[in-house]
Amino acid sequence: MQLPSALLENAVLQFSKLPGIGKKTALRLVLHLMKQDVNEVQFFGETIAKMRRDIQFCQRCFNVSDGHICSICSNSQRNQRMICVVENIRDVIAIESTQQFNGTYHVLDGIISPLDGIGPDQLNIEPLILRIKNEGIEELVFALSPNIQGDTTIYYIQKKLEQFPCRITTIARGIAFGGELEYADEMTLARSIANRLPIQQYVK
Amino acid sequence: MQLPSALLENAVLQFSKLPGIGKKTALRLVLHLMKQDVNEVQFFGETIAKMRRDIQFCQRCFNVSDGHICSICSNSQRNQRMICVVENIRDVIAIESTQQFNGTYHVLDGIISPLDGIGPDQLNIEPLILRIKNEGIEELVFALSPNIQGDTTIYYIQKKLEQFPCRITTIARGIAFGGELEYADEMTLARSIANRLPIQQYVK
Repeated sequence: MQLPSALLENAVLQFSKLPGIGKKTALRLVLHLMKQDVNEVQFFGETIAKMRRDIQFCQRCFNVSDGHICSICSNSQRNQRMICVVENIRDVIAIESTQQFNGTYHVLDGIISPLDGIGPDQLNIEPLILRIKNEGIEELVFALSPNIQGDTTIYYIQKKLEQFPCRITTIARGIAFGGELEYADEMTLARSIANRLPIQQYVK
Repeated sequence: MQLPSALLENAVLQFSKLPGIGKKTALRLVLHLMKQDVNEVQFFGETIAKMRRDIQFCQRCFNVSDGHICSICSNSQRNQRMICVVENIRDVIAIESTQQFNGTYHVLDGIISPLDGIGPDQLNIEPLILRIKNEGIEELVFALSPNIQGDTTIYYIQKKLEQFPCRITTIARGIAFGGELEYADEMTLARSIANRLPIQQYVK
């Protein structure tokens, strides 16, 4: 694709570096911006750059934050003795949008995956152990991906915590709402049978 | 979707204003940028803003340009007596990428569409008439959308040009390469039969 202007070409190149955005989509976005007000596009560029420059990570839970400590960690209405362990920030946002969890989070920033060269030292595991040691944490809820890497990570952290009187749980696996039994994979179906609930608890 | 940081929220809001980008995709893009180098993201923002601020439109053909006259209009290797009339800049880029057209363009910046309140005066039609009058144009090729608005626009411009000795053509409509006959619409199929070509011309 040959473009008639170097300015256009540079802008398209920048957009097409983003994940899932090809050259054609990038061109569509740039041509859209070309029709917007100059000041608005200036503001667009500045907002993105400012976000990257000023964003911080919470020193306690490693969630994104506008300050040293994030709004969840500094909220006294939330149960500060309960930690939900997640892989990344997207998971925090997903769980927050359910409005069903009232504790705090701990973002590992990845998952133990020897094949990808990611060991425990590259993750925020040591700070998690320190939190449990120092903050009197009562429950740790793992919300990691249901695969070997997730299970390895849970096993590794659990081993490190044997000395602490902290309850360790993991979010339930099972058939999704609206999911058809016959299309569920065997592993999920088997787990959901093994972990069946009294009907009173289900309809609660 | 509740986000844990105002900086993040603002950046997501900016991205989700773009066409075809919802809140979830915007978040994915912003989280990607968050992991890039600060200077690179700064450059991203600046490139977009600079594009909008500095981009110009060719005073002759209304294509995007880095100067007063675009690179196609100022290229003496191209046939400056032939104009391809298109609706927008995307069409110029599409035709250029075929490398089959060696003339110049004229971007109407829309198409006559009374229902949308777009009349001839809102389009770059008057400058086109002036070009034909002053530049000794020999052929005008219409490459507009094959619908009522496109046909109306062609008819309107054609009427205005009756006094000039300029050949007027339109790009061929027909069955696309790789298209199946049985799935082609009747109009296209009928036109492609009416405008059939001698086989020698087809394989040329």
